[in-house]
Amino acid sequence: MLPPILIDDVHPRTPAGLAAKAAVGEEVAVEATLIADGHELLGARVRWHRAGDDEWLSSPLTSTGNDRWVGRLTLTEIGAHEFVVEAWTDRYATWRHEIEVKVAVNQDVALELEEGARLLDDLAERVAIPAGDRLRVAAAAVRRTTCSLAVRLEAATDPAVVALLEGLPDARLSASEVRPLWVDRPIAAHAAWYELFPRSFGGLKGAAEHLAYVADLGFDVVYLPPIHPIGVTNRKGRDNTLVAGPDDPGSPWAIGSPDGGHDAVHPELGTLDDLDAFVARAEELGLEVALDYALQCSPDHPWVHDHPEWFERRPDGSIRFAENPPKQYEDIHPIAFWPADDADRVALWEACRDVLEHWIAHGIRTFRVDNPHTKPLAFWAWLIDDVHARHADVLFLAEAFTTPAMMAKLAEVGFSQSYTYFTWRHEAWELREYVSELTQRPLAEYMRPSFWPNTPDILDDVVLRNAPPAAFALRLVLAATLVPVYGIYSGYELAENEPASEGNTEYRHSEKYEVKVRDYDAPDSLAPLIREVNGLRRRHPSIWRLGDIRFHHADDERVLVYSRGHTDTDLLVAIVNLDPHEARATTVRLDLAAIGIPADRPYQLHDALTGETYVWGGDAAFVRLDPTVGQVAHLFHVTR
Amino acid sequence: MLPPILIDDVHPRTPAGLAAKAAVGEEVAVEATLIADGHELLGARVRWHRAGDDEWLSSPLTSTGNDRWVGRLTLTEIGAHEFVVEAWTDRYATWRHEIEVKVAVNQDVALELEEGARLLDDLAERVAIPAGDRLRVAAAAVRRTTCSLAVRLEAATDPAVVALLEGLPDARLSASEVRPLWVDRPIAAHAAWYELFPRSFGGLKGAAEHLAYVADLGFDVVYLPPIHPIGVTNRKGRDNTLVAGPDDPGSPWAIGSPDGGHDAVHPELGTLDDLDAFVARAEELGLEVALDYALQCSPDHPWVHDHPEWFERRPDGSIRFAENPPKQYEDIHPIAFWPADDADRVALWEACRDVLEHWIAHGIRTFRVDNPHTKPLAFWAWLIDDVHARHADVLFLAEAFTTPAMMAKLAEVGFSQSYTYFTWRHEAWELREYVSELTQRPLAEYMRPSFWPNTPDILDDVVLRNAPPAAFALRLVLAATLVPVYGIYSGYELAENEPASEGNTEYRHSEKYEVKVRDYDAPDSLAPLIREVNGLRRRHPSIWRLGDIRFHHADDERVLVYSRGHTDTDLLVAIVNLDPHEARATTVRLDLAAIGIPADRPYQLHDALTGETYVWGGDAAFVRLDPTVGQVAHLFHVTR
Repeated sequence: MLPPILIDDVHPRTPAGLAAKAAVGEEVAVEATLIADGHELLGARVRWHRAGDDEWLSSPLTSTGNDRWVGRLTLTEIGAHEFVVEAWTDRYATWRHEIEVKVAVNQDVALELEEGARLLDDLAERVAIPAGDRLRVAAAAVRRTTCSLAVRLEAATDPAVVALLEGLPDARLSASEVRPLWVDRPIAAHAAWYELFPRSFGGLKGAAEHLAYVADLGFDVVYLPPIHPIGVTNRKGRDNTLVAGPDDPGSPWAIGSPDGGHDAVHPELGTLDDLDAFVARAEELGLEVALDYALQCSPDHPWVHDHPEWFERRPDGSIRFAENPPKQYEDIHPIAFWPADDADRVALWEACRDVLEHWIAHGIRTFRVDNPHTKPLAFWAWLIDDVHARHADVLFLAEAFTTPAMMAKLAEVGFSQSYTYFTWRHEAWELREYVSELTQRPLAEYMRPSFWPNTPDILDDVVLRNAPPAAFALRLVLAATLVPVYGIYSGYELAENEPASEGNTEYRHSEKYEVKVRDYDAPDSLAPLIREVNGLRRRHPSIWRLGDIRFHHADDERVLVYSRGHTDTDLLVAIVNLDPHEARATTVRLDLAAIGIPADRPYQLHDALTGETYVWGGDAAFVRLDPTVGQVAHLFHVTR
Repeated sequence: MLPPILIDDVHPRTPAGLAAKAAVGEEVAVEATLIADGHELLGARVRWHRAGDDEWLSSPLTSTGNDRWVGRLTLTEIGAHEFVVEAWTDRYATWRHEIEVKVAVNQDVALELEEGARLLDDLAERVAIPAGDRLRVAAAAVRRTTCSLAVRLEAATDPAVVALLEGLPDARLSASEVRPLWVDRPIAAHAAWYELFPRSFGGLKGAAEHLAYVADLGFDVVYLPPIHPIGVTNRKGRDNTLVAGPDDPGSPWAIGSPDGGHDAVHPELGTLDDLDAFVARAEELGLEVALDYALQCSPDHPWVHDHPEWFERRPDGSIRFAENPPKQYEDIHPIAFWPADDADRVALWEACRDVLEHWIAHGIRTFRVDNPHTKPLAFWAWLIDDVHARHADVLFLAEAFTTPAMMAKLAEVGFSQSYTYFTWRHEAWELREYVSELTQRPLAEYMRPSFWPNTPDILDDVVLRNAPPAAFALRLVLAATLVPVYGIYSGYELAENEPASEGNTEYRHSEKYEVKVRDYDAPDSLAPLIREVNGLRRRHPSIWRLGDIRFHHADDERVLVYSRGHTDTDLLVAIVNLDPHEARATTVRLDLAAIGIPADRPYQLHDALTGETYVWGGDAAFVRLDPTVGQVAHLFHVTR
């Protein structure tokens, strides 16, 4: 039988009812629709705890109209949590409301007073003695026929009594299902990533020396492509050629050689001790190290020899190479995640899990997962749950550029962060639409988008290819302020813009296939801009909250205007010229009421990029951004 | 463990997973998102059956992009059904696709041919002998190295083989949960209702004589307010006064007197035999009779005497009257649906159910349920399921004017049709927004909106109050063509427009409290218009499909333009002047591509209201509708 109060559409939740995500320190809005017959007033609360804890915390829900109720909870620990929404008929509030309405129109309320007294007596039975006594005293006062109606009513609505009863559920409590909520470290919810190839710095030791630069730029995570031995068989040469020269280092994603597989360090990069030292140095600088987790094997990987049952064999006895017909990847074998014998499957999945355990033991707590969409969702759901059961602090970034449904589902089964289509969203309307999609419920309750203007594989051909540094600057500003998690791949700050060829979005002389030595101190580097933007991100909590974004109007559709936060707390307004080639001058129009600025008073805008302060009044202002002189955006901190 | 293919977001479904609704003859779109890793092609189907039947029917799902798949099923029987979506990796289609791609770029495919031959052999094991033999022959041909590649490929893609394998699921089948689907009679999905008070025709005999008029106007359902004995205690007088005169008949909703309760016929209306005769006459005329089901009792109802435990008692021993403070309804007691003793609850609920059984035994198959939102959802869920278990043909219309969440939930727990806010939606943008809300998924999969321009309680004060007949005409056209179910209350066709008072949306001399004799043959009656509109509804299946509506543009925002259907099947275009007082002349612009009209060819529009035929070319046309001469709308049947 249905309960007296239906508790429907409880959020946060994922479509399949798996764990929604939160981070320590984040305020989580809990919402539910409460549906009950009749005119009685309801009460509601959310209760939550860390899964397994005996104690539950509680916070009230309040009505926002149309049967929707909202409350808030803040998590302080990582790991699996649970919450439940409870609702009840608030008989006392109902009674108070109805008697007030009746007294106001001079209806006789003798019976109502007695009903109220009985209700107070009844409630008194359900609370501890001192409080219960107070309720009984109030009941007696309500009944005291020698007093005037006004005095008796006053006794019934005594604020102390009301406070006592507030949130005291009726005996009959309706409860939602208990819902799961996974809580991550704050760095899962907001972080700036920097990707670098250690071999381009001479190995892990040289890369460790470069960490001070990365930290100085204000990044939170430094991510290394696979650091494992690279296969020799069918190794790719420079510029992705089929035959490698004797000095070609090969793609780090062709993992495995006689030197070892996924749990080894490539001798050319150093030793496991060098990795430990790299992690220690990063920690000193406040940087977290992310490793790549790419589940495929070069033909020389120990697994290929030791576990042929983990790969697909062809009619001639050979092992199948990776392919996406007609493309062929001769330097890697895909893993067959569903061997015919289930014992083989278990052994394989556990071996994959043990790779993670190995690196976790070496202080790694973040993994960037290569192409998760080409491996079973069942595997990821199992793997992430299994690892989280022992290491709740481990994070996984899904590198899946595929259909929206698969990307969302990977997040739903447990990935902490997700690459996105940002790289291919250029126009103002595209960015507005895409960010709105990513920040809407329920997607935003379990998928944390990460915006990357480039990767080693992707030199965007619309804005960045052969483009001036202003293009790189504006795309960085967008990535860093449209969502709380973003990243760049080294070389971005130097505005590397040469494509492998026309009709190809890879880089010329791609670092995937060769060592790349750069002058990071080049005078026209975008490093100062990046330092400013990352500094702004650290100072402004409004950037840490995915959904806390609002778009505003600009007359010129090549200018994107958006705000984060509210003047009550922390308000940022970003105005970005999407055209890297020409100055744009336009009127912008802010939705002042929505961001907490009085329409009739001037307000101050401090530009984090130039240090200048402006005073505007009213919703409309004229702005001009000239990328040819380095002005690609205003990033305003706004105060009333 | 998750299955290899995730089958997500399966529709139709309700938010809580209760039964979605369909009607006999209706085509139901089944949708699902299929998510699988890798590049292999998938196959999918929907299987369905009547709950309890051994046999399942099956229909293919096809991909519409972005992992979404759609199929169609048509139901032929009423009652509980179930469906399930199944998906599999189509290894043969994958193989055919990949070998074609490879051959196109001259890759060597010797291994691929052998793999295909093995696959055919493997599949041959899983089908009956003649088909299996055919597959083995194909496998042998593919292997025949003495033939040219072209010949071997041809054998592999032999259309007979492909046809044989199409839809042959792989051994490993992923299946969605089995989903419930409730199937009603067609009249649940599309019907025109007419409400009348039998006492205004002298009782059931007189009302039976009026049925020919109702049938002639093209209505499908004739609905009677409560026909039961009316209480005398606190009976309301004319115009809702507190004291009834000796001849005042009282409100039919104050049910129960010494003459009987919910299962009795008011002696002033006739006998149970008269009701039987009324139902028989309606049936002759092709009309269905709907009775009111109003669960409240006058103080004189037998239940009040026999079952005091079904009512709430006050401190002075009296039984609580209905109230919505400060409003008091002294002529009725609400029923207390949760008596303290659960045995009392069971007896009460079963007594309420037995009322329905009584009328069902007298041929009633449709009930209009009064104020269901003031009774527990748990009661309705139980009641409707219980009745449907024995009488799958019974329909329930929910008269709930309350919050959207409660209205949707009533539909979700089983109500067949639902009153709506149509009465208070007047402007073009309001109507577009509201109809869009009602026709969107998932709401439209379980809630069937019924549009009523008036009821005995509601004389809309924006368009209808003191308004000319044109106002009544235009609201009727909207109600009858915006959704498949609509209704009017008698007197509407005579444009009765006098309010009880200013600031009150009830009628003056409301028929709820007195007998009302009308001249239904009045020369300015809207009956001819209603006959035309109802005739149009019967001829055009596009009006039977709730979601099959599209809004088009008009320069004048007081003109609403919408279409139903498509030229491939049946296309209607409605153009309605929402202003009953003034002529409106405006350009309208049809989305021709969406409704199947070539932009470069003329098309014909036949107006069902005037009989005139127009020829238009292109998307824009100029229309003028003058309500002062009776032109409130065009209802065009459009043909290429």
